[in-house]
Amino acid sequence: MTKLKLGMIGGGQGAFIGGVHRIASRIDDHYELVAGSLASKPDIAHASAKDLGISEDRSYSSYEEMSEKESNRDDGIDVAAIVTPNHLHYPIAEAFLKKGIHVICDKPLTHNLEDAERFYNCVKDSKALFALTHNYTGYPMVRQAREMFRSGEIGKLRVIQVEYAQDWLTLPIENEGQKQAAWRTDPSKAGMGGSIGDIGSHAFNLADFITGAKLEELCADISSFVEGRKNDDNAHVLLRYENGAKGMLWSSQVAPGNENALKIRIYGDKGGLEWEQENPNYLRVDIFGKAKKIIRRAGNETTETGTRVTRIPPGHPEGYLEGFANLYSDFAKQILALQQGVQIDESLKLVPSIDDGLKGVRFITSVVDSGLNGSKWIKF
Amino acid sequence: MTKLKLGMIGGGQGAFIGGVHRIASRIDDHYELVAGSLASKPDIAHASAKDLGISEDRSYSSYEEMSEKESNRDDGIDVAAIVTPNHLHYPIAEAFLKKGIHVICDKPLTHNLEDAERFYNCVKDSKALFALTHNYTGYPMVRQAREMFRSGEIGKLRVIQVEYAQDWLTLPIENEGQKQAAWRTDPSKAGMGGSIGDIGSHAFNLADFITGAKLEELCADISSFVEGRKNDDNAHVLLRYENGAKGMLWSSQVAPGNENALKIRIYGDKGGLEWEQENPNYLRVDIFGKAKKIIRRAGNETTETGTRVTRIPPGHPEGYLEGFANLYSDFAKQILALQQGVQIDESLKLVPSIDDGLKGVRFITSVVDSGLNGSKWIKF
Amino acid sequence: MTKLKLGMIGGGQGAFIGGVHRIASRIDDHYELVAGSLASKPDIAHASAKDLGISEDRSYSSYEEMSEKESNRDDGIDVAAIVTPNHLHYPIAEAFLKKGIHVICDKPLTHNLEDAERFYNCVKDSKALFALTHNYTGYPMVRQAREMFRSGEIGKLRVIQVEYAQDWLTLPIENEGQKQAAWRTDPSKAGMGGSIGDIGSHAFNLADFITGAKLEELCADISSFVEGRKNDDNAHVLLRYENGAKGMLWSSQVAPGNENALKIRIYGDKGGLEWEQENPNYLRVDIFGKAKKIIRRAGNETTETGTRVTRIPPGHPEGYLEGFANLYSDFAKQILALQQGVQIDESLKLVPSIDDGLKGVRFITSVVDSGLNGSKWIKF
Amino acid sequence: MTKLKLGMIGGGQGAFIGGVHRIASRIDDHYELVAGSLASKPDIAHASAKDLGISEDRSYSSYEEMSEKESNRDDGIDVAAIVTPNHLHYPIAEAFLKKGIHVICDKPLTHNLEDAERFYNCVKDSKALFALTHNYTGYPMVRQAREMFRSGEIGKLRVIQVEYAQDWLTLPIENEGQKQAAWRTDPSKAGMGGSIGDIGSHAFNLADFITGAKLEELCADISSFVEGRKNDDNAHVLLRYENGAKGMLWSSQVAPGNENALKIRIYGDKGGLEWEQENPNYLRVDIFGKAKKIIRRAGNETTETGTRVTRIPPGHPEGYLEGFANLYSDFAKQILALQQGVQIDESLKLVPSIDDGLKGVRFITSVVDSGLNGSKWIKF
Repeated sequence: MTKLKLGMIGGGQGAFIGGVHRIASRIDDHYELVAGSLASKPDIAHASAKDLGISEDRSYSSYEEMSEKESNRDDGIDVAAIVTPNHLHYPIAEAFLKKGIHVICDKPLTHNLEDAERFYNCVKDSKALFALTHNYTGYPMVRQAREMFRSGEIGKLRVIQVEYAQDWLTLPIENEGQKQAAWRTDPSKAGMGGSIGDIGSHAFNLADFITGAKLEELCADISSFVEGRKNDDNAHVLLRYENGAKGMLWSSQVAPGNENALKIRIYGDKGGLEWEQENPNYLRVDIFGKAKKIIRRAGNETTETGTRVTRIPPGHPEGYLEGFANLYSDFAKQILALQQGVQIDESLKLVPSIDDGLKGVRFITSVVDSGLNGSKWIKF
Repeated sequence: MTKLKLGMIGGGQGAFIGGVHRIASRIDDHYELVAGSLASKPDIAHASAKDLGISEDRSYSSYEEMSEKESNRDDGIDVAAIVTPNHLHYPIAEAFLKKGIHVICDKPLTHNLEDAERFYNCVKDSKALFALTHNYTGYPMVRQAREMFRSGEIGKLRVIQVEYAQDWLTLPIENEGQKQAAWRTDPSKAGMGGSIGDIGSHAFNLADFITGAKLEELCADISSFVEGRKNDDNAHVLLRYENGAKGMLWSSQVAPGNENALKIRIYGDKGGLEWEQENPNYLRVDIFGKAKKIIRRAGNETTETGTRVTRIPPGHPEGYLEGFANLYSDFAKQILALQQGVQIDESLKLVPSIDDGLKGVRFITSVVDSGLNGSKWIKF
Repeated sequence: MTKLKLGMIGGGQGAFIGGVHRIASRIDDHYELVAGSLASKPDIAHASAKDLGISEDRSYSSYEEMSEKESNRDDGIDVAAIVTPNHLHYPIAEAFLKKGIHVICDKPLTHNLEDAERFYNCVKDSKALFALTHNYTGYPMVRQAREMFRSGEIGKLRVIQVEYAQDWLTLPIENEGQKQAAWRTDPSKAGMGGSIGDIGSHAFNLADFITGAKLEELCADISSFVEGRKNDDNAHVLLRYENGAKGMLWSSQVAPGNENALKIRIYGDKGGLEWEQENPNYLRVDIFGKAKKIIRRAGNETTETGTRVTRIPPGHPEGYLEGFANLYSDFAKQILALQQGVQIDESLKLVPSIDDGLKGVRFITSVVDSGLNGSKWIKF
Repeated sequence: MTKLKLGMIGGGQGAFIGGVHRIASRIDDHYELVAGSLASKPDIAHASAKDLGISEDRSYSSYEEMSEKESNRDDGIDVAAIVTPNHLHYPIAEAFLKKGIHVICDKPLTHNLEDAERFYNCVKDSKALFALTHNYTGYPMVRQAREMFRSGEIGKLRVIQVEYAQDWLTLPIENEGQKQAAWRTDPSKAGMGGSIGDIGSHAFNLADFITGAKLEELCADISSFVEGRKNDDNAHVLLRYENGAKGMLWSSQVAPGNENALKIRIYGDKGGLEWEQENPNYLRVDIFGKAKKIIRRAGNETTETGTRVTRIPPGHPEGYLEGFANLYSDFAKQILALQQGVQIDESLKLVPSIDDGLKGVRFITSVVDSGLNGSKWIKF
């Protein structure tokens, strides 16, 4: 199979998510990393490029230079992966999209709603494709949950309980030189959402991905438990969906004992579904009146939707990187279809899109808006 | 040991919780059931009494008669257990308390706040003792959680996540002759709280029991998903405790796959605690920076607080009935101390009191009040 | 319902299992404890009797006296519960059975095979009824497992994996005055089996109870890891059942982290069943080609066999004492049927019998025999 | 970093484990697949090579041709990965090792002991490096378990319980055209071990890897439950280690509900360790007298041994492929060190070696030998 040529912006030495993107791009062998503007400081950028086997002439000091030069090369990159802090997502994406280079971007889309809307228009105006790495949607059992929910297996939606809890910001480590903590708690880089932006947005997206239920109103109580922290490190949100369905969302980065405890439970008038990110190979299904069922990735009672995006037999666990890789691989197939002039298969379109990105920023903004205004109810 | 003479009001044929109280009273052999007014219909009352080995002359047709006659007997009952629907708790308790007969009463205290306040005064005015069966406080690991929290093990309180989910009201079974469902969904008997009154009150009490944190404000979104149901069958509540601590409470009786899924997680600035009623012999403890610990009932790293109220070695599970029995047994010891004129040991006072009962009704009332008034924030 | 009059032999101050039997006898209110010979030392016996509310004249200094006098009373005991160390089971039981008094006896039946055979004949010759407290058979989900297995749900038996692990004998506490440890590691009281007698016999019985498969041969490797310990504290046993089925049994009292970890897994050519004593309210069922199912006590997909012996709804856990109580209560119903001259219902006959007791001692003896003879294969 | 040039033998269309090796080689970007002899049928070999982007001139029809030509190229492969059925491992490895090409080979080493011994000598005689993919040793928490055991944390070894259960051979699918099942149940290709060779060897290796305890004797009972199946599909093995330690090993491919249920429990006189492959990010640790601890991959109380071979933070699960990749990556680092003339770090030598391979085949052979000879005890 043809490999796509990948460039990366951000993700140099000391960064976290860039490395994840690179592994995700390699797992199914659809990409080759050939160019990068890996850090804002040129020396770090070039050293990082060298580590990664990017040739010197394709290690750039700025994304502007990179988009310019790569788009002029015959063997220029097909795709740009953006893995910088949030506030840089939009200007970088714009530069590449305008050159017709496909973009895969980390979440949340942007650090504010204004940029998100511009971003949205920019994608809509471009012929290039766009993907947002709300990576939890790549887990096979999440995709099966979506299929089961949408096929009516648990009936009409009543209640969504979703949460994402971590503990790494329990102490004020942003003041102690922890680079990840520093930018993620800095409103000018991360945006106004703290925990709600960093992880609450994943929780919201997960509920949205599975159910597709339209959120109508929300009421949020947000806290900054660590003294001096500007953004929330804990958010409690009540959700009202269309048709009377209700939800609860909790995001926290100060809940000791929680590492990446993203969990969702969805209840309808016929049954319930439960899934947990830390143990992602299992989907718990309760049909009202029946014994609880545990469906295992690639195992009995799984369907094509989920099994298409697994690599190994049931009982051999796949994890975070494989789920992330599913987004990269499906996006590669989208691009290849486009390049080959064939229609993009519907199944590939589960990859989160610019619509999801805009919705996510709107969610973050609304939560903060409610939270800062007496936790009042806000239309979504 | 002297056995206390127990009378029961309610709990006849077809009832549920009365049987639980009876087993709870027998497990540690501190009570002998000798009298009862077991049902509102005399024939059922008497037939029930016969089943239970209560002699004919102590099977009464009304609680008024029972309180009158039992208080006049030399061998009259020491304690009256009230296990009727909620709206009858207060008048019955009043009758016995006024005769100086100790009362142990099912929860919630009453079906409305007015009665709850009267009840409160009545208990305070009586020399007789009172206990409320918020039975989950009887679980050894809940008591150990309380002790650990209060000793500062997890630091200053930040977040409480508590929930109680069931599924038995997923369908409108109250219209199909299910007796339990009928009264529990009937506001005139259960009070204005549906799920929030029946089980949400347990969740609130559990958080209160462990932490003692003062609730200051709440905001509730309540739903009746089953058509025609008058009370809520699902409630989502945001909680604000003193000193900036926050909480979330969910009660639901329409969440398929949940049987009696009472769960609590408490986070402080040093650690977290987790406990689940369906697997009650385990307490999960996370001290920030340390591996997760699982403390097992009566096992390693348990303390006197919890082990005093267990009967068998670790690994042999105790359950709901034993937890319930702990309330009965501690209450018996309170009464015996009083009868013997010795001081009641502090450890025995963990049994929920009239203060807890009044607080519980106020909680239910506030949730319904917020829920029916646009889910606004309400001072507690 | 008429209560049976119960006497107890053993179970005085400082004993363990006697207290369990007493609670088990009370839970469903079928028994009244009225007599006892609770300890070998008269002063302890009488002090214990007083604690338990047994009147002075029915506190006996010896079981001989007790059987004699109780059988001569009009209101003499219906049932004798034997909760002494193993070597006393037979002579005591014989004394009561010969007087026509029903006997419920702790396991294993005896400390040697000779006594077990005599015991067997004695029961067969008596008109009185006999029950052996292999209590794990009283758990509702164990009974449902038995029913499911025997109805062919998992097909023809292939493999049984059963184990019972504890850790309380990890150190030589028998030398440090721990009374339970002292007699349970003393061959003259416990018999030749250490862990295999105390708990391995439960594991064997559990497999036998559920499957009824006939054991044909075994090969055992037994160890005494603690220096100076005379009996095994760890036993590994290979099992060959009729029709080519195979099994593995592990008993250990030196496995740190295990409290009462009795677990069984049974596989047939159509499916598998799994059950764990420490979490007894759940039965895991795998039908080949289907998702895993978790059947919950008293919940969906349970049957009369299991639900008949539960007291409370699903999700409110029952534990060890309730399972134990099921044996007491079923045995009471057997006796009442006999007293009333009606046929004993088949469902009540799940209570372990003298046949199970003899088989159990034969199993212990065979394991020790193999273990002490080069771990050779032995016909059963 | 320099990438190693990788060639693969076996692993063409329709194969399973080859794909796993390829992903494992890519995850950390230490290898580039440039040559292959991917199938015994040339057309399948070449089509497979094309799929994988191997250039035509480096797709070979036989391993002999491949070893010859690749060793003559300036840019010839550094490493040959052997992923064929077991009976071909040795001749292929020999061809490459003799040319000085490093070899990474799937397990078990060979299909018989004779070849295993030749293989052993061949590796010892070669300057090239060798690695065997007993991949479960690559899991971070397995490596931490090894470190903890060897540092004496659980004391002197007493008992090992290890098992590997699957269910995919419950029915005779080898007769129905399932290619994997066909060769894995064919003694001429898989060797004399069925389940014991395919997965029991992993279980044995895991116990060996963690404890290093010397096996002295074994006694095995092996079965072929599926009619007509030549090799065992279930094996029960008793183990005697040096210094009186004992063990039990169970392998089964006919245990419905088990997917890849590799589990190990190790007990010493001070504590116990538990690990399960299906949930590999957790290590359960019991220090006698302490609460149970759960150590999570990359989380609190982990050490360099385990964290060195993880890529992402705790709570984001890594799985089978990442564990497998750890072997590939450590082997790459071994080779690079050799190429650069620097000493190979001790930590890299955890990768299973030819010694492990030979020991594994000896284990399989001994089990079958015992099993076919009346399940007698055999010196190891």
